Amino acid sequence: SKRYTITLLPGDGIGPEVISVATNVLKLAASLEGIEFDFQEMPVGGAALDSTGLPLPAETLSAAKQSDAVLLGAIGGYKWDKNEKHLKPETGLLQLRAGLQVFANLRPATVLPQLVDASTLKKEVAEGVDLMVVRELTGGIYFGKPRGFSVNENGQEIGFNTEVYATHEIDRIARVAFETARKRSGKLCSVDKANVLEASIFWRKRVTAIASEYPDVELSHMYVDNAAMQLVRDPKQFDTIVTNNIFGDILSDEASMITGSIGMLPSASLGESGPGLFEPIHGSAPDIAGQDKANPLATVLSAAMLLKYGLGEENAAKRIEAAVLDTLSRGYRTGDIYSAGNKLVGCKEMGEEVLKSV
Amino acid sequence: SKRYTITLLPGDGIGPEVISVATNVLKLAASLEGIEFDFQEMPVGGAALDSTGLPLPAETLSAAKQSDAVLLGAIGGYKWDKNEKHLKPETGLLQLRAGLQVFANLRPATVLPQLVDASTLKKEVAEGVDLMVVRELTGGIYFGKPRGFSVNENGQEIGFNTEVYATHEIDRIARVAFETARKRSGKLCSVDKANVLEASIFWRKRVTAIASEYPDVELSHMYVDNAAMQLVRDPKQFDTIVTNNIFGDILSDEASMITGSIGMLPSASLGESGPGLFEPIHGSAPDIAGQDKANPLATVLSAAMLLKYGLGEENAAKRIEAAVLDTLSRGYRTGDIYSAGNKLVGCKEMGEEVLKSV
Ligand SMILES: CC(C)[C@H](C(=O)O)[C@@H](O)C(=O)O
Ligand SMILES: CC(C)[C@H](C(=O)O)[C@@H](O)C(=O)O
Repeated sequence: SKRYTITLLPGDGIGPEVISVATNVLKLAASLEGIEFDFQEMPVGGAALDSTGLPLPAETLSAAKQSDAVLLGAIGGYKWDKNEKHLKPETGLLQLRAGLQVFANLRPATVLPQLVDASTLKKEVAEGVDLMVVRELTGGIYFGKPRGFSVNENGQEIGFNTEVYATHEIDRIARVAFETARKRSGKLCSVDKANVLEASIFWRKRVTAIASEYPDVELSHMYVDNAAMQLVRDPKQFDTIVTNNIFGDILSDEASMITGSIGMLPSASLGESGPGLFEPIHGSAPDIAGQDKANPLATVLSAAMLLKYGLGEENAAKRIEAAVLDTLSRGYRTGDIYSAGNKLVGCKEMGEEVLKSV
Repeated sequence: SKRYTITLLPGDGIGPEVISVATNVLKLAASLEGIEFDFQEMPVGGAALDSTGLPLPAETLSAAKQSDAVLLGAIGGYKWDKNEKHLKPETGLLQLRAGLQVFANLRPATVLPQLVDASTLKKEVAEGVDLMVVRELTGGIYFGKPRGFSVNENGQEIGFNTEVYATHEIDRIARVAFETARKRSGKLCSVDKANVLEASIFWRKRVTAIASEYPDVELSHMYVDNAAMQLVRDPKQFDTIVTNNIFGDILSDEASMITGSIGMLPSASLGESGPGLFEPIHGSAPDIAGQDKANPLATVLSAAMLLKYGLGEENAAKRIEAAVLDTLSRGYRTGDIYSAGNKLVGCKEMGEEVLKSV
């Protein structure tokens, strides 16, 4: 039987609740494929700040690096909102992404037939949406230097950041995006602001250069403002989208809300080699933390992505995906996706129902 | 009788068609209030590139500066898409904004009762949306230096830009936003990415400082990724939004698409003093240019903003706004906002109907 080491990072807010459910589902689905796990739970984010004074303790990063994959719950909360930048929970997450060098963030946004009514978009617009945002995750304005606070030549205080991309950073994310598009519908849309930004002109130039390696994939380019509009106007026009870190942050959240079920959406962050990082795209939801109200399905589906993209265990991944669909078809709903005629359940009960469906 | 000089910049694509309609409406509505105009038409964007080799000829900028207000159609088109940056139509627009120092871009996004079905959002979500995005327009990553192309310490080519804001740039846009919010519902939401970017931390700090001058306005802060989601989830939660240049570019386009009638939406760009710049938020739509299909109402409503914000002529502005609503109520629709049961008209005929309603 196969054995993998998984680092669990429950984090803050609803993180521990959804990680607990996802871990149980992961264990059961994998065991049916003869896979076993060693789990190690480590602190990150606000939880780590409280227990160690740092948002990403060195032990957490080194455990994560030595494992086969990392499953994260959520980070952040009001309690730490006023912390200085290097002591924010978010900084722990950014350090984790950088430390694991997971430069490719895959964020699917899919409208499940069972949940089409959850979207604020009209049924005919939302129905059938199935797109993937490939977001560059370890470069751009998130990490660019110089950055900070200073005083300009007029004696005025300033705050500043640098948006910067180098050839290899664009080339490698472009390749991931082309590979992703190839496995899907063969259509890739690269989003930038090349009518204004040099960083985007360079981005477009490199993406276009890499396109010659993928003659079977149809590449188009779109400005980010237009993309933000088109996602609302007709999200079905998109299959795979590739974009930089900050545009990807904005557009993937917009795309996920278009599905109406942000509590359902997983993500995978992958590097050249080494463990991937898997997490729901929702946040830590401090207002409902500890109340057994959270929707664990985004984390459960992140565990499926962990199996598929992180370990290459497609069969076990499919078991989880099928179990989630089956549970929804049997009418179980947490509050965020509830609609009349279904059965309202809490986080734990939803987990138990998914286990029954595995 | 009062007399104003207006610079008309028709620009590219559908620009000339919509400017022609808007000018006629502007003339008639103003004349009924005893206002007369001297119009001077000047080239900008692709049209200026073709005739002078520059996207913003010096004559155009100086004419604009010396006038009382500037009305712009649209700029850009496939023809100039591959031009180098300094020879792009868009660069002409950026130079015009910088030259006129119009740092405050007001972009209303309103769902008119007559057009609620045009939104891709469900009726109950779209109905009653009435928000204003106040976008900083002459700073941030659009203009920040250093910028360009270079080679990094690893010998890799890079493209880079600088996001930077100084105290006075944030303070003045914040004041415009607080004043705007005060005249509306008294709620202001400042959008940033202060959990990651120093430029945003500084932005939040200054906006919070300026808030003490406006104790009657309720200030909240939101991260840009969340704002992109919330605009889809529940746009009615917003009244006035203030944000930086690039986030404002993205969010105002998203907000405008939420109304479903981007062909209806005007914008005003204002400075401390000097002429304002008024333009529809839609682009030059090269695919329908010259076919008498464009919706001129966004430009007509931009002329109303010109009267209100640019010249302080509220009564004439109200005449135009009322005429547009009346024309819609009488069932006239261009193709972009057409729905069954209404009368489909072209750009010119829509203009004639609005004139009848003035
Ligand atoms: C929490 C924050 C730093 C993070 C980001 O901006 O990347 C989050 O919004 C995300 O998208 O995962
Ligand atoms: C044409 C382009 C330079 C411009 C911008 O990015 O500001 C446009 O998108 C806008 O919003 O007016």
